[in-house]
Amino acid sequence: MWTVHTGAVELTTIDDIEAAARRIDGSIVRTPLLPCLWAEPDRPLWLKPEQLQPIGAFKIRGAANAIGRIPDEVRARGVVAYSSGNHAQAVAYVAKLYGVPATIVVTTNTPLVKIEATRRHGAEVLVVPPAERESAAEEVVRERGGTLVPPFDHPDVIAGQGTVGLEIAADLPDVEVVLVPVSGAGLISGVATAIKARAPRAQVVGVEPELAGDTAEGFRLGRMPSWSTDDRARTIADGLRSAPSELTFAHVRKFVDDVVTVTEDQIREAIGVLATKSQVVAEPSGAVTTAAYLHAGLPKGRTVAVLSGGNVDPALLAGILTAQG
Amino acid sequence: MWTVHTGAVELTTIDDIEAAARRIDGSIVRTPLLPCLWAEPDRPLWLKPEQLQPIGAFKIRGAANAIGRIPDEVRARGVVAYSSGNHAQAVAYVAKLYGVPATIVVTTNTPLVKIEATRRHGAEVLVVPPAERESAAEEVVRERGGTLVPPFDHPDVIAGQGTVGLEIAADLPDVEVVLVPVSGAGLISGVATAIKARAPRAQVVGVEPELAGDTAEGFRLGRMPSWSTDDRARTIADGLRSAPSELTFAHVRKFVDDVVTVTEDQIREAIGVLATKSQVVAEPSGAVTTAAYLHAGLPKGRTVAVLSGGNVDPALLAGILTAQG
Repeated sequence: MWTVHTGAVELTTIDDIEAAARRIDGSIVRTPLLPCLWAEPDRPLWLKPEQLQPIGAFKIRGAANAIGRIPDEVRARGVVAYSSGNHAQAVAYVAKLYGVPATIVVTTNTPLVKIEATRRHGAEVLVVPPAERESAAEEVVRERGGTLVPPFDHPDVIAGQGTVGLEIAADLPDVEVVLVPVSGAGLISGVATAIKARAPRAQVVGVEPELAGDTAEGFRLGRMPSWSTDDRARTIADGLRSAPSELTFAHVRKFVDDVVTVTEDQIREAIGVLATKSQVVAEPSGAVTTAAYLHAGLPKGRTVAVLSGGNVDPALLAGILTAQG
Repeated sequence: MWTVHTGAVELTTIDDIEAAARRIDGSIVRTPLLPCLWAEPDRPLWLKPEQLQPIGAFKIRGAANAIGRIPDEVRARGVVAYSSGNHAQAVAYVAKLYGVPATIVVTTNTPLVKIEATRRHGAEVLVVPPAERESAAEEVVRERGGTLVPPFDHPDVIAGQGTVGLEIAADLPDVEVVLVPVSGAGLISGVATAIKARAPRAQVVGVEPELAGDTAEGFRLGRMPSWSTDDRARTIADGLRSAPSELTFAHVRKFVDDVVTVTEDQIREAIGVLATKSQVVAEPSGAVTTAAYLHAGLPKGRTVAVLSGGNVDPALLAGILTAQG
């Protein structure tokens, strides 16, 4: 199995992120910053709408960088991921761009609609019991010689996600506050690295659902969080139920200024605000930064909220719009 | 009253549109093309999502160009528009950017929510009976020496809207089909002028609701349409109820390859597809091009659908998502 980095926790650098930006240029949408007319006067707000990426989420950036870095002859043997969410779509989509096979391992409790979405990108989908997910993926890697693309715990994935921060700094060099959703913390690790290098006056603030606020707690206490999977699964923000790895938590401790939390009701409200006032669909995970802007008592100044994705259940969105209408 | 062009029907040129692009650069969002994974293989589709503009619609482009061209000392006396829709918001927003007063004339049957939205941009709102709309606007122009900014029937407005076409040709030079909503036809006049100059292999196809298909009929018959206001008002696409002017219809006859129509049900379906598969909110007027892509039997090839705006009634969007869920 091919890997670039091994062993010790080595932080991603701005050079890694700039190389990633060149590598993924043709695979992603260069999302604009969207000024929000509904922002408070002393806290102008721009959205970084990553749900506009082809698969509806930022995950395509990390996948495109990680897959792009695999040597051609190794990549030709295929890529593998275990995920039922946006990362699976991203790996399947980028594999198709490169014309290499993708195998996605999902569990028997994965909704059929997500399995079909992954198949539509041309990926082979293996359905296994939840407990066998990782071992099944490793078996595919062993047998076929493919490369496993992890969802966040890898320097190439972090560098790819960091291109979001590079673009923010390029488009709004005097940004003062950058809000980033936190789950496995791959996105904020990359974004914070880029922002501290290219717009160092800005504060980077992570946002989590209160019900999956493990990184916020760990950040406050200065140690790796250890919430159970069941605890983290309580939030509607299904993309924010992972825990950070040693690698990503090291980035958070070094580069992130604060991690705040929002309630489930605040997330729902933010989804409605984004749809009706900024014309974009956000999934709960993507809306937490807007919820934080509205409720978390954040520092004043020019603010960017990263919207990580928009793959929301239509019935949830309809319910929110009806309740707020 | 200050005007640039008068009298005879003189068509907008690509030079006018390129000058407009330079003039409005700092006032608008440079929207990306969004590739659609749900497109048919032989007709790849990209969206041009103009609902991501600050006021939720492309109208800001024409307003920014028209207001930008007014000499400083004249512009300082203010700008005037009569409209209750996206054009009013656009004029109010651009006037604020220039720091000049805006007066928007609306009618007594305008929903309060739209009046408040216009006031929020700092515009003065005059509420008059429907029959007095134009005369009231002209009176403001006469008394205060302000400049009237028409919604579509003006070369500077057409040139501003044409920047949408310039961006499409720059981002996808080998585009083959460009779909554009048609109402007063200012947008398609500018877009078609730009596309025929910069991507001349592409066909430009206008899209109207069947219930407001006056331009489609006029195009087929080769003469200015003359549907009644009541007839055109039947569609839910409230932004597509205007009729073309002599100026815009001349552009349509010269540069547009076809004008097709879609049904009300097809528009509703397209709103749902855009929200759930492309993560953008479109108002009915903005969704007609996607409806045409799905149903109008259009030419094959690389297709761009211009989404003109996203200011949809939340209850309508909720109802569509519920029905399709």
